Amino acid sequence: MKQEHKIALLGLGTVGSGVWKILSEKKDMLLARTEHQFTIKKILVKDLKKKRSVSVPSSFFVSKADDILKDPEIDIVVEVMGGHEPAGTYITQALQAGKAVVTANKALLAERGVELFKLARQKGLSLGFEASVAGGIPIIKSIREGFIGNQIQELYGIINGTSNFILSEMTAHGSDFATVLAQAQKEGYAEQNPDFDVKGIDAAQKLSLLTSICYDVEPPKNGIYVEGIDRITPLDIQFAKKLGYVIKLLAITKAQYFNQPHSGAEGEAPSGLPVEGATRAPVIDARVHPTMIPEKHPLADVSGIYNAIFLKGDAVGETMFLGRGAGSMPTASAVVSDIVMAATGRGTSLTTASLRPMTLQSIEDLQSEYYLRFSVIDKPGVLAEIANCLGDADISIAAVYQRERDLGSRVPIVVMTHEALEKNVREALKKIDELESVLDESVLIRVLKR
Amino acid sequence: MKQEHKIALLGLGTVGSGVWKILSEKKDMLLARTEHQFTIKKILVKDLKKKRSVSVPSSFFVSKADDILKDPEIDIVVEVMGGHEPAGTYITQALQAGKAVVTANKALLAERGVELFKLARQKGLSLGFEASVAGGIPIIKSIREGFIGNQIQELYGIINGTSNFILSEMTAHGSDFATVLAQAQKEGYAEQNPDFDVKGIDAAQKLSLLTSICYDVEPPKNGIYVEGIDRITPLDIQFAKKLGYVIKLLAITKAQYFNQPHSGAEGEAPSGLPVEGATRAPVIDARVHPTMIPEKHPLADVSGIYNAIFLKGDAVGETMFLGRGAGSMPTASAVVSDIVMAATGRGTSLTTASLRPMTLQSIEDLQSEYYLRFSVIDKPGVLAEIANCLGDADISIAAVYQRERDLGSRVPIVVMTHEALEKNVREALKKIDELESVLDESVLIRVLKR
Repeated sequence: MKQEHKIALLGLGTVGSGVWKILSEKKDMLLARTEHQFTIKKILVKDLKKKRSVSVPSSFFVSKADDILKDPEIDIVVEVMGGHEPAGTYITQALQAGKAVVTANKALLAERGVELFKLARQKGLSLGFEASVAGGIPIIKSIREGFIGNQIQELYGIINGTSNFILSEMTAHGSDFATVLAQAQKEGYAEQNPDFDVKGIDAAQKLSLLTSICYDVEPPKNGIYVEGIDRITPLDIQFAKKLGYVIKLLAITKAQYFNQPHSGAEGEAPSGLPVEGATRAPVIDARVHPTMIPEKHPLADVSGIYNAIFLKGDAVGETMFLGRGAGSMPTASAVVSDIVMAATGRGTSLTTASLRPMTLQSIEDLQSEYYLRFSVIDKPGVLAEIANCLGDADISIAAVYQRERDLGSRVPIVVMTHEALEKNVREALKKIDELESVLDESVLIRVLKR
Repeated sequence: MKQEHKIALLGLGTVGSGVWKILSEKKDMLLARTEHQFTIKKILVKDLKKKRSVSVPSSFFVSKADDILKDPEIDIVVEVMGGHEPAGTYITQALQAGKAVVTANKALLAERGVELFKLARQKGLSLGFEASVAGGIPIIKSIREGFIGNQIQELYGIINGTSNFILSEMTAHGSDFATVLAQAQKEGYAEQNPDFDVKGIDAAQKLSLLTSICYDVEPPKNGIYVEGIDRITPLDIQFAKKLGYVIKLLAITKAQYFNQPHSGAEGEAPSGLPVEGATRAPVIDARVHPTMIPEKHPLADVSGIYNAIFLKGDAVGETMFLGRGAGSMPTASAVVSDIVMAATGRGTSLTTASLRPMTLQSIEDLQSEYYLRFSVIDKPGVLAEIANCLGDADISIAAVYQRERDLGSRVPIVVMTHEALEKNVREALKKIDELESVLDESVLIRVLKR
């Protein structure tokens, strides 16, 4: 096995700078630990003259990708530029040229993962992506290697630091979304265009990858139900607290397995996979939305910019991983791990060996407990009307919270339901929202069972 | 690479049964995930006729280790019998015969790890030991692979389930140690001879291994300071609660690094390790003792039989791992991971590449905050006497708690100190214990800084 590795970085932003720092400052430590030498040879940058947060001699910079992709000495390419293109093309070309690839690009992998993993596999190369989910937490490695003897049953992740930061601040200070968002933007915890984070898109891309590795299925591209935190109000956070819950943006993925062997009729077996060895494609419930978490649940305490992943495997039971989900050094920590794994022959391109097609469960088919908040004119009979609509839709009420009477004014009514079918809940809300005494659109927040 | 693996188990107890279950029930899943086939061929048992918790055809059983160790078809040996001998001999012989080894035997590795890892390395074989620490939590893999780009700075572990269960019960119900221990023994959470767990020995063995992999040093055999939970009283738990703390048995390891390169004069460089590449052997503060943890710390909520490891790396920052630290299936989950890693060429025998000698810091040199409880006769001037003794030893008091006056009766006085040197604290306690008004031996519990 080759003991000296020449590495190229595509990009020198937040993550790239961290990778530069670790590889240049810890050469000796990595050599002692692995007996391999890691040297950055070239760095692709757009602007050769831009001022950088790390001091990198300009002799490392190249402005043409081909200077890297066609350099036979470079054996590991680290893509930390982000975005779909040209990142996708560069990764493809690097793999075709026989170079191992490490990437932190969840958007690209959620979209083109199957194609890229297949290529890596054909070429017998490693395509590492630990940094793409939950930053420094080695969750990909843990699921794919540590829990390889497990059928993963469910996973709950706090995997968007920006949303978690905003919700934590709203919870701590009772402030509203817009105020905290503005503050987070000022402090650099949120982007100027925050939609990608606060609308749950980032979390959904990561969840797509997690779903793929948890259940050996192709990453679902579309169809993951996504709801952001932008409509959460201090009032709902307050009610949640009173009821013993904390509101978090959760990425959830659960699988229902069917243990019959793959019959052939259920769909093509992925290439290279013995039909005998596969179980039928699972039905997967994958979604991202604000969730009321019982305050005693380990995820309830994960605040600020921390990420956490709680998962249940059939052998290992319940486990949780906590750490920084973003930032230069934590993410670089994961990238460097992937570089070392690729170099020492422990990188994995196993994923596609067992990627099965799967079916995503529609959000309408979800069975969950619900928090429902109605804005009503306080007058006798309103609650009865609401309760009737819920009852008609087969929704059973667990508890109702109403403030003291204040006849004629606008008041909130909160209903906690027992487990109900989301389709029914939506139908009931539609009818309730048409009631004369109901003033605003009703609020629905899914509740994690105690 | 070989695609079919014949596995032998040495032992079919709690962990062995779990491994049997996973490998026999999940053959197809593992084949789909890895394209390797795993088949148990033989199982070494003491009693061929004993009734087992899993139904294993008796054709698998052998009573002589040689039937396994001399069987050339067997390529992976799983040692789940425990104890020093004959386990140590069998592992040695298996490695010498060219078989990869997986073990859950922390006692053996803490004692003879260096020798066994060296042998595995010479033979180019994998010696997996994920199951030896924190059961199903992939902490060894995370530290050695996920955090390979990090200098680990400190680690705090709740790694003895029995002790954590007992302390959690004492905290929840205000019961005393003996009562809860008896209950735990009845329910199977504690052994009939509980000393190994409640006196901290088990935790110290695991800490020895964690210290080794965190800091690339030889596992410290002796000299880890160990104090168990058997002297913790409901009164101290109650005071802790009032002060905003929870008492847990913590295994702690911290390193102070010296960044000068290995000069040769500092000691021999381990074989196979470039002298240039090494940094000077670190001084390590490794200890196991009951600790007062601030109630907001992520470790404070880890209760019952759960294990958790909180660690800080210089790149990744703070991370925590939570899961079941024992039990048949969680531990088997880790064993199966090691089996697959060995089989697919991703097992590691890297450890010894960089094992340096190190120095253990004496507990006397510890700088910590302390909780001190004195049993005194309530009379004027007692607190002043105690405060004088502390002041004379250069210990600065952060807070004092005394109950209402009850002249002439036995009362507790609690002192919380600022950071102080343990040596000084011990000297002060010795003097205080000689005071006429002080009735019992004083209680000292180390406090984790907020």
